[in-house]
Amino acid sequence: MIHVRTGIKRPSPDIIAGYRELSSATVHEASGRKGAVDPAIKPISRRVKICGPAFTVQCAPGDNLMLHKALEKAQPGDVIVASVGGQPEYGYWGSLMAVSAMARGLGGLAIDGCVRDSEEIISMGFPVFSRGFAIRGTAKATLGTINYPTVFGGVMVNPGDIVIGDDDGIVVVALNEAEEVLEKSIRRKQMEEEKAKVLASGVSSVEYNKLDGVFRALGLVEE
Amino acid sequence: MIHVRTGIKRPSPDIIAGYRELSSATVHEASGRKGAVDPAIKPISRRVKICGPAFTVQCAPGDNLMLHKALEKAQPGDVIVASVGGQPEYGYWGSLMAVSAMARGLGGLAIDGCVRDSEEIISMGFPVFSRGFAIRGTAKATLGTINYPTVFGGVMVNPGDIVIGDDDGIVVVALNEAEEVLEKSIRRKQMEEEKAKVLASGVSSVEYNKLDGVFRALGLVEE
Amino acid sequence: MIHVRTGIKRPSPDIIAGYRELSSATVHEASGRKGAVDPAIKPISRRVKICGPAFTVQCAPGDNLMLHKALEKAQPGDVIVASVGGQPEYGYWGSLMAVSAMARGLGGLAIDGCVRDSEEIISMGFPVFSRGFAIRGTAKATLGTINYPTVFGGVMVNPGDIVIGDDDGIVVVALNEAEEVLEKSIRRKQMEEEKAKVLASGVSSVEYNKLDGVFRALGLVEE
Amino acid sequence: MIHVRTGIKRPSPDIIAGYRELSSATVHEASGRKGAVDPAIKPISRRVKICGPAFTVQCAPGDNLMLHKALEKAQPGDVIVASVGGQPEYGYWGSLMAVSAMARGLGGLAIDGCVRDSEEIISMGFPVFSRGFAIRGTAKATLGTINYPTVFGGVMVNPGDIVIGDDDGIVVVALNEAEEVLEKSIRRKQMEEEKAKVLASGVSSVEYNKLDGVFRALGLVEE
Amino acid sequence: MIHVRTGIKRPSPDIIAGYRELSSATVHEASGRKGAVDPAIKPISRRVKICGPAFTVQCAPGDNLMLHKALEKAQPGDVIVASVGGQPEYGYWGSLMAVSAMARGLGGLAIDGCVRDSEEIISMGFPVFSRGFAIRGTAKATLGTINYPTVFGGVMVNPGDIVIGDDDGIVVVALNEAEEVLEKSIRRKQMEEEKAKVLASGVSSVEYNKLDGVFRALGLVEE
Amino acid sequence: MIHVRTGIKRPSPDIIAGYRELSSATVHEASGRKGAVDPAIKPISRRVKICGPAFTVQCAPGDNLMLHKALEKAQPGDVIVASVGGQPEYGYWGSLMAVSAMARGLGGLAIDGCVRDSEEIISMGFPVFSRGFAIRGTAKATLGTINYPTVFGGVMVNPGDIVIGDDDGIVVVALNEAEEVLEKSIRRKQMEEEKAKVLASGVSSVEYNKLDGVFRALGLVEE
Repeated sequence: MIHVRTGIKRPSPDIIAGYRELSSATVHEASGRKGAVDPAIKPISRRVKICGPAFTVQCAPGDNLMLHKALEKAQPGDVIVASVGGQPEYGYWGSLMAVSAMARGLGGLAIDGCVRDSEEIISMGFPVFSRGFAIRGTAKATLGTINYPTVFGGVMVNPGDIVIGDDDGIVVVALNEAEEVLEKSIRRKQMEEEKAKVLASGVSSVEYNKLDGVFRALGLVEE
Repeated sequence: MIHVRTGIKRPSPDIIAGYRELSSATVHEASGRKGAVDPAIKPISRRVKICGPAFTVQCAPGDNLMLHKALEKAQPGDVIVASVGGQPEYGYWGSLMAVSAMARGLGGLAIDGCVRDSEEIISMGFPVFSRGFAIRGTAKATLGTINYPTVFGGVMVNPGDIVIGDDDGIVVVALNEAEEVLEKSIRRKQMEEEKAKVLASGVSSVEYNKLDGVFRALGLVEE
Repeated sequence: MIHVRTGIKRPSPDIIAGYRELSSATVHEASGRKGAVDPAIKPISRRVKICGPAFTVQCAPGDNLMLHKALEKAQPGDVIVASVGGQPEYGYWGSLMAVSAMARGLGGLAIDGCVRDSEEIISMGFPVFSRGFAIRGTAKATLGTINYPTVFGGVMVNPGDIVIGDDDGIVVVALNEAEEVLEKSIRRKQMEEEKAKVLASGVSSVEYNKLDGVFRALGLVEE
Repeated sequence: MIHVRTGIKRPSPDIIAGYRELSSATVHEASGRKGAVDPAIKPISRRVKICGPAFTVQCAPGDNLMLHKALEKAQPGDVIVASVGGQPEYGYWGSLMAVSAMARGLGGLAIDGCVRDSEEIISMGFPVFSRGFAIRGTAKATLGTINYPTVFGGVMVNPGDIVIGDDDGIVVVALNEAEEVLEKSIRRKQMEEEKAKVLASGVSSVEYNKLDGVFRALGLVEE
Repeated sequence: MIHVRTGIKRPSPDIIAGYRELSSATVHEASGRKGAVDPAIKPISRRVKICGPAFTVQCAPGDNLMLHKALEKAQPGDVIVASVGGQPEYGYWGSLMAVSAMARGLGGLAIDGCVRDSEEIISMGFPVFSRGFAIRGTAKATLGTINYPTVFGGVMVNPGDIVIGDDDGIVVVALNEAEEVLEKSIRRKQMEEEKAKVLASGVSSVEYNKLDGVFRALGLVEE
Repeated sequence: MIHVRTGIKRPSPDIIAGYRELSSATVHEASGRKGAVDPAIKPISRRVKICGPAFTVQCAPGDNLMLHKALEKAQPGDVIVASVGGQPEYGYWGSLMAVSAMARGLGGLAIDGCVRDSEEIISMGFPVFSRGFAIRGTAKATLGTINYPTVFGGVMVNPGDIVIGDDDGIVVVALNEAEEVLEKSIRRKQMEEEKAKVLASGVSSVEYNKLDGVFRALGLVEE
């Protein structure tokens, strides 16, 4: 079998640039509520954001060998999306790997395990989303796979899918829906900005969203 | 049955103002160690504080319909205390609802589920305590109840009870004990300030608290 | 039996000073990957660091009596390492105890339970590592032990062992390996700084670490 | 407010009798995949089954006062559905309460907390579904509510809804859908029995379920 | 320091024999609701019971060296109460150790970690309470302590305290309260048997326990 | 990419037959303590055992489509080893699939999710290891992979590896070590039987295992 696939499709830079202006919550709603990753996978520091095509990696538990291969093969802008097999409490990634990733122009790391050297990584400005921090060292002894479909935080991610993360969490958009969801997301963002103005003026969300009909249909009784 | 109760009693503004100067830990101690909410319900950002009468809401899991009704019915200063039925990982509340809540002068939100749009909510300054962040969207399809006694983070909260939260967590004071606990809390705060001065001078807490008798009674043996 | 042991050995101030310049991850690696404490025990605020000889305390669950005894007996620079018996959600330590600890020059607190008065403790600058915050009050009614071997976050800690903590977590170094591990850690830090330069120049970590041999031996197939 | 509601609607005995012949999984599927309760709420012994109309109870955490009121008010055949506010580890129910429940002909207990005296309850034959066993005693000091909508194991249960439980877990059917779901469940059971015969003869489930079209549409590639 | 203490006091055989007739729930109530161990520590098979004086052992995480020392030093009837430092998922005990324990007449094992060879141990009839089963092997390389106070499942256990376990869980009775709690437990058991008869005749628990006064004082409103 | 690989190597029937006589704990020890799967994956009923070559399946979370493909492609004796992406609480497998699996002579199912129709599956005698039971239905809408390396309960499993499970849990033996580990396991089993006899005669495990040297080297102090 082939462990490392490389000829993957990626979205155009324009599309990535478009998503960079959007929040994960807006994109999730606009996509029809798909792709919400387990929110326990968080930015290593407030305000850290991530956006780019997924370069998927499956590690063996407690082993980061395939992340080194990923560092060698990923292209500028790629977000390494790494699954570590349900054993998060190792430092799968550290400042030296972040140095290497920045030297190669990668777009970030999203991992369902922990990382270490958090202070250095934050000050470097390399965007990382993880389950937290751990110093326990990993082995480099077991093969995994690269650029196969990978379950990440409860979402099946395919290489080239778009990964968008902010303080609220990560959403994944399927590559073949990227353009459509981007348009819908932009429209939703505009709609939300307008709605915010109306609500700020004191109109209730029940009125704005016409929820009275819903309450009536459900038989709500108010005192 | 009546889903939405409205004629609830609330503490006087003076009492709320009094509690605003106190920490949750001090109030918890002064109340006879009652009302400590599960500390996994935390402020969305360091230093965010919450203080006001509880406006209790029971949502169906994954459904925020009743929060919209609460936005319509709660009064200025009220803290919406929302229970979501043991399924926290949805974004039950977002920036638009925070806009609406601020427009109506509400005192904050304490929810045993997650919220989204955290960055906007933090910059707006609307105080929220939650189990964290999640982008997954909710339905608006199932009735719940408003202003009934609600179990919130392991504490039975009645509408009108006082909710006080800071970085350490939330404490709830029963409405009919509000005045008495406030007085005790103020006295405790003064006592703690005096005690801090003595301890800062080097007197040990064993000496200050006269713990030697306790150790003796328990049969402590020191080397 | 003796509850409180006091005649414990401690590392020299020079050794402690040496460790203060090192990260927990570097020391963990240099020690042969030993002593990594459960990373759920975290600094109460970003950038808080801890470094000093362990003064071990075993509390009864929900009882902080022995911490007061520890405050009386620990020496300047000591880090109180307190185990609370698998019931973390109490405020075992607060600002008054931190005042006392600072008055006595202690080096910090590492506890596998929660603390309260976090805001004051942070502004005081007393270093605390804990499982988080809780306001629930403790009793002062049950004896425990001081300066016995204690399991702390999954690591058997002996009094006098060195405790080093930063944003990534805590590592414990056995007293009798303190000198050797310090030397190895310093060498490792230098090596990492040199490696960072090479990786920053674009050399891949596969090349730098000579991982091609590993991949070949394991039978890696690339597309 | 009214704490104890009593004039609730219940399904007819025929309908309950019909559900008694069905498994929870079949009913869940036939209902359109609704009403699946958190599977951590399990029968206290293999093969214990429960079936009847919900008599809902909201207890305060660590307090079983309202269960005694429920024992007084519930009617023969009723299943007490008790929510204990996210603090399961108390013995909310024991053998004496089971004796009382059997004397009054109740249909069983489904509780999202623990129970005690499991050995006696099992030998009595009173059906209980719980989160397990705990001996810790409860208080009888705080009011809750009876026969209000209650979130139970992640499902909003209304009084009179039908509760069906077996080794796989509990499903809840809304009272107003009870007849329709019963018919669908019976049909599904028959269909499953026929399908079992075909599959037992060696026909694959891919063939039986015509999944080849699905695989083709999704682009499956087989070696 | 002394690692292995041996001169511990034990309750008389008569007292142990008395407790053998009682359930853990009854003893817990009679003791004033003390000593309830975390119910996740369960018998390895339904109906397995344990009763005897605690012989306490503190292991290092993932290391069972001290259990071998305990096997050598414990006396007939003793229940080894072993704490493994919050890392349960190892097979700390297996069938060979059970053979040895039976050869020496020990009363059982209560451990807050896992065991292996469960099938053999069950068929042998050696009583074990554990957090479940795991095959992962342990080291024999780190010292711990024997017959010191040990926190076990959230309870501070002293050597010689009485350990009583059944399907509902484990309760620990302090040695110096053993006689008094035994008497109270026997009385409570008798009272419960009488109460069962009354309740079986149809008298409600509200009536029997005179709860009407409680409901009235709390302001209960019934429909 | 290829989703379904089929030309996998399997161990000889003799080797499988050999392992069938051994316990998971013995094999784990004999293999050098490798391959211990997360013990939360348990037999659906006491005494259920599983033994055979792994036929690995990666499902999307909440989707059992690939299990149907596996039922079509697996060979007699194969054990389907299915990973469901960290979302266990669905009924990924039921009695109809078990009927089909038995019709095709499969060796069993080991899944890191839940199953349903447990009563029927147990009475059929089809061996299943799972994280428990759940009735919640799955989709059949997303591709996964078959016979790729899969992380299962914390172990990287390759197709053709041998899966051995009993009440203590599951161990996985790499195909290329199958013969060697089998021999070592048989020897270990014999050694354990002999050791059991010696220990049953009253010889302590300290004496048998010559642990006195270990205790001396570590500096054990006995009272």
